[in-house]
Order: sequence, then C-alpha cells, then structure tokens
Amino acid sequence: MKLSNVKGTRDFSPKDMVVREKIIDTAKEVFRRYGFLPLDTPALEYMEVLNAKGGGGEDVQNETYNFKDKSGREIGLRYDLTVPTARFLAMNPNLPLPVKRYQSGRCWRYGEIKKGRYREFYQFDADIFGAKSMLADAEIIAASLRVYKELGIKVTMRINNRKILSALARYADVKDEDELFRAIDKLDKIGFKGVEKELGDRGIKEIRKVIDFMKTDDLKKAEELVDEGGKEGFAELEELANYLTSMGVRNFVLDLSLARGMDYYTGPVFEASCDGINVSVGGGGRYDKLIGLLSGRDIAATGFSLGIEPMFELMKGKVVTTPDIFVANVGADKKVIKIAKMLREQKKVVQIGLMGRSLKKQLNYANRIGVPKVYIVGKKESGIVTIRDMKTGKEKKVKL
Amino acid sequence: MKLSNVKGTRDFSPKDMVVREKIIDTAKEVFRRYGFLPLDTPALEYMEVLNAKGGGGEDVQNETYNFKDKSGREIGLRYDLTVPTARFLAMNPNLPLPVKRYQSGRCWRYGEIKKGRYREFYQFDADIFGAKSMLADAEIIAASLRVYKELGIKVTMRINNRKILSALARYADVKDEDELFRAIDKLDKIGFKGVEKELGDRGIKEIRKVIDFMKTDDLKKAEELVDEGGKEGFAELEELANYLTSMGVRNFVLDLSLARGMDYYTGPVFEASCDGINVSVGGGGRYDKLIGLLSGRDIAATGFSLGIEPMFELMKGKVVTTPDIFVANVGADKKVIKIAKMLREQKKVVQIGLMGRSLKKQLNYANRIGVPKVYIVGKKESGIVTIRDMKTGKEKKVKL
Repeated sequence: MKLSNVKGTRDFSPKDMVVREKIIDTAKEVFRRYGFLPLDTPALEYMEVLNAKGGGGEDVQNETYNFKDKSGREIGLRYDLTVPTARFLAMNPNLPLPVKRYQSGRCWRYGEIKKGRYREFYQFDADIFGAKSMLADAEIIAASLRVYKELGIKVTMRINNRKILSALARYADVKDEDELFRAIDKLDKIGFKGVEKELGDRGIKEIRKVIDFMKTDDLKKAEELVDEGGKEGFAELEELANYLTSMGVRNFVLDLSLARGMDYYTGPVFEASCDGINVSVGGGGRYDKLIGLLSGRDIAATGFSLGIEPMFELMKGKVVTTPDIFVANVGADKKVIKIAKMLREQKKVVQIGLMGRSLKKQLNYANRIGVPKVYIVGKKESGIVTIRDMKTGKEKKVKL
Repeated sequence: MKLSNVKGTRDFSPKDMVVREKIIDTAKEVFRRYGFLPLDTPALEYMEVLNAKGGGGEDVQNETYNFKDKSGREIGLRYDLTVPTARFLAMNPNLPLPVKRYQSGRCWRYGEIKKGRYREFYQFDADIFGAKSMLADAEIIAASLRVYKELGIKVTMRINNRKILSALARYADVKDEDELFRAIDKLDKIGFKGVEKELGDRGIKEIRKVIDFMKTDDLKKAEELVDEGGKEGFAELEELANYLTSMGVRNFVLDLSLARGMDYYTGPVFEASCDGINVSVGGGGRYDKLIGLLSGRDIAATGFSLGIEPMFELMKGKVVTTPDIFVANVGADKKVIKIAKMLREQKKVVQIGLMGRSLKKQLNYANRIGVPKVYIVGKKESGIVTIRDMKTGKEKKVKL
C-alpha cells in the first residue's frame, strides 16, 4: 500500500508545529489581554448554513467538501470561521454585546490546488460584534499589531475605508463597484500599470481618475473629489487614525489604494504588509451587514484574520524547536531521572536517553534532533555530570 | 430558516472555551518540558489509511464520515490521532527514534449519539515511538500525572500489564482473551458482581479464578499462578513501578483488575482515576504492534490519551473566564485608552467601553459578563479613576 496524505492537505512535522503553535499561542495570549475570549464551533455545518453568506450558490456547493448524512441532510466542512460564528450569534441572542471573540481552527475548500493554496488551511480570526464605534476597529488593529510585534514580525498596517472606495466608484462612473474593488485589490501583485489594464478589461472608462485617486497622498484634496458618502468615509478614517495615535500605535498608514478583495466590507479595511518584502500577513475590516444575513438581526462587526501561512514562512527557522538539554544515559537510570526532574522543575525542556544505546549513539541522536547541550551521566562518578556543548564539542565536568 | 449545529457536534461558548484552552495549553506546556514535540496531521485521510488499524472492516466504513472525492477516491474524517500518526511515521522513515510527540485535535465518529458520546470530539494524545524500555512508559505516566497536578485534578494512576492478563486468560482456560479483557474492562461500571455475570455470558467457565486474581493485593502470590509470559508481565510491572518511584511519583497503584478496552495493547496499561468520584480522566498503554500495521516496520509505542471531556466537566467553574477589569467610558475615549494600555502592559485582561453607552448600561454589561472590577473614567476629573468592586458595589477614588 502506497501511503499518502489527502491531496491538498499537509502534515506538519514537529519542527514546523513548534513554530505554528508559537504563532497561535502568542495571538491567543495577546487577544485575551485585549478582552477577547475564545469561541469554538464544529468543523461540520449544514449546507444551508454554509450557503447563507452571499446567498450561497454554485460556488459554495462546488468548492466545499460536502455530502449527505444518513438521513439525507446535506453537510459540509466549513470554509471559514465567520459563517459558523454568525450562526452561533444567531442561536445565542442573549449574549451581551459587544462580543469580542477569537477563533482558531482548520477550514476546508475543495477547490483547485495552487502554490500556497491548500484544501485544508488554518484560520485565526479576532472580531468584535455589536460595536459601531471606530474605537472597536482601532482595538482590532492595535491588538493585531501587538501580535506581530511580540512575534518579531515588522509590519505596517495599511488602512482605507470602503465608503471612500464606493464614492470613488461613483466619481469615476463605475457601474459595478465590486469590479473596481477587485481590480484595485490586485495592486500588490500587478502594480499600477497592471491595475490600469485590469480596469480597462473590466470596462471601466475613467481609468485616469481612479489611478490618480489611488496614488494621492493628499487626503484633503481627495476628500474634495467625493460625495457625502465618501466624506463620511474620510471622517471615519480620521477618527480611526486619531484613536490609533492615542493608543500609541505608529506603524500604520492611510492608503487610498487598499481595497481588500471581499464584497462584504462596509467601512474601514486594513491589511498588514511586512516591511521589506512584498507580503500581506493578515487583513480585515468592518462588515456590518454580513452577520444579519444569517442571524436575521443586523450586528455590527469588525475583525482581523491573521495570515498564518505567510507568518509561518517568515518565522521558520527563527524559533527554537529542539529540547534544551539531552541527558545521555550510560547505565545510570536513577541518576538520569533525578537530573531530568531537577531540570524540568526549572522549566527546561529535557529529553533523556530511553533506548539503552551506547554514548556514541546517544550523542548522534542528540545531534540529529539538534539539542544544543548534552548532560552525560555515567554509573561511576557520583554527583558529577559532564556537560557537552554540541556545537563546539567542548566538555566540562560539573558537580551537581 | 431554523438554525442549528450538526447533530452530535457542539459549539463551545467563550466561557467553556477558556476552560478547554486551559486544559490543552497546560498539557502542551508539560509535555513540551518532558521533551515531546507537537505533530499535526490533516482531518481528512484516505479510507485505505483509516481502514488499516485492526484490518478495517465494516465498523470503520460505517462509523466514519466518508465520501468519494471528485476523482472517485474514498476520503474520510479521522476517528483518532493514532492512525494518522502511524501514517506520518511510515512516510517519514528517517526521523530519528525515539519520536516523542503530542497531538491535539478534533476527531469524528459517525456512530450513535449517546450521553457523553459525540460525533465530533477532541483528543489529546502523547506518545513515545521507538523505545521499548519501561522508562518510556514511566515518562509517559509521570508527564501525564504532572498535567493533572498542574490543573489541580487529583488522580491515581492504576497500572497493570497486558502480559499478565493474557497469562490470566491461559490460567483460567479462556479461549479468546479479548473476551476476558472486555468483561474485565466493565468493572468500573458494573462492579465485580456484574463482571462475574459478564464472564459467564461470554462463555468463560473459570469465573472464580478470574475474580480472585483480579481482587488480589498480593502480587507475589498472583505471580506464582501464571506462566512465563505472565511472569514477564510482572517483571515489567515491577520495573515500571521502580522507575516511577525514582521519579518521585507517588499517586499510582498496581491493580490487576485494570484491563482497558482496546485489543491492541501489548504491555503496560494505565488509567487515571479521579479521586473521590468514579471517573476515568485518561488512559493509555503500550502498543508495540500497531504502528507496524501501517508502517510495515514494527515500532515500539507507548502513549497516553487525556480525557478532555471528563477533565472539562471537573474544571468547569474553577477557571477565571472573565476579563480582570472593565474600563467604563463616560465620554473620555483618550483617558480610557491610556488606562487600558497601562493595564494591558501589566498583563491584565482588559475590556473597555466601546458602545458609547451610559454608565448605568456599562455597569450592567460588566455585571453580565462577570467582570470583578470596573474602572470608571469620566471627562471631568483628570488623573482620577473610580474603581468599583462589582461584588460589593463599593467604590474608591484612586489617583493614577
């Protein structure tokens, strides 16, 4: 039998998982401190729930893993964490608002497999439900930036507002604003020249207007070009910037060229770009209408989704993934046990020789798993341990 | 549309999830210290992999969620973490042994829904692969007991050995030893009287011999009754007990009446019983043959599975699930932001007023989410905060 994992899914080796757990654990800890609590929902949902977002349709049906259960009811694997949370909020109408929750878990899409796109993937979302104030968006942004900071990932948060972009669509005579958003959203990948072409391909005529607007640094001047709806967006942008400044947040920029791909945003949109390299490591925004699609009552919502995969790629190799100490066991079980116990009480990560191997083989094992220090404990000497630095090969005897 | 979650699955509210994360995080931290590393495998596996354990058969086919993918290949949701790990080990033959890994995640069974049995459930497994020594079993037991200790759950680890039970089967002329193990495994639920009846129902004749053996405290005397294979089991039991004693572990008992239900154990078996109440909160044992079924090469294995559900029930209500402080905001955004920032830097869990509500409504919200302390920050007074104890209702003014 030729063994393999299911196409489009991945195993994460211990070395990789240490990095991934570091990202998730740090994010949880930071969002907890900001008053967010964890929520968990099942991997399986009824298809009528999964179809609710954006009216469902063929896309959801074709791009989810779904099947009929024994009673003939259609069940699918969730493709995001927002829809299950919307269902949870709808089923728990007595929860006091605002609800600040984070949720972390696997999602599945049964679509094409491309580079960096898997059929099973991991989401980490933090959202505030029920708060309309820009202060909520500011908290989301500040907490998210704190996560990157604690992980040592240098980012800049780009911020825009969908109300401004909608006004831009009107100003540039665009019929379907989603076409405009999708074209602008490609900027990172294809540059301004590419966006120009994209706008043309999508039948948008006033290309110059759009590009000039996207490029402007002068917000006051841009504000003069748009209607009342757009001005509201600018006011929100300013309010949000003021909150962030009060919070001591410095690494953000107001950027009229940020669109974000999804249709459902209604206010601020934001995206974390990693300094130096051209990667988005997370993004989010306000989506005040989406929860109402499922819950029947409008609940304002703003949230952020960490880009677990790009964060993982950035952090690989930068996290210690090995035990601190390997205690080699040369026929001295009891001494080894005692030393390991002592070291673990000091919160050291300790492996001990379990295999009855020769010292040479134990050093070889320690080397292969990358432990920096080996304590060698033999039968003869009492109270004395040889500590070997695995990098230099130097040894010293220490009395314990 | 009437919303519901899929039958046999559960939502975990923030209050519940804080408790569950506490259990998982503590277990991860302890096993890390003992030199275990995390592994993660997909939720989906090819059915030929899921069918490998115990030869597969109708049970697996009927009791898993499975379906054909677009290419007609059968895929299923994993029902445990052992089989995927066995596949991982088989696909990564160059990993240096021993491999010490923990894995935490959802599993699914598409069986009958009973009280306490769900279709989606959570596993936390820690195993050592490749080590035959009883020292490995001792490490598994010691680390597991440490998890309970750090969570404040008082347990006793009952320990037996399958080699002894196999010898008991021979001593009592039992043809199919699995029948004996399954009858003995019911002891907790049905008592000795019940086991007697169960043994009879399963066609076992020497009921007296079995019951007397199970009940004995005198291991030396019991050892005399069994053959060489059984004596090997007693020797392993003694060796394991000696290691545990060296490790300073006190809360274990050698118990000839412990069987564990599964067929695949080959040596020590162990189960953590919660003191005072009649609940098993985890269990495990050695299974040296199972990995070979998938990987083609025998790899010794011993491991422990935490009983997440009973642990959760025991810990509910004993973990702080609320923010430490709610900073009420009476039109003083900037001051509130400053105070929240300061408190969060001190690692306090802080919520702030986001809704522009009256003070009365904010106190009501704080009360509903169970925050013990509210800091009231108003526009007027500068540098002064009123701290309200939500239990007593007492307030004091503090200069910041």
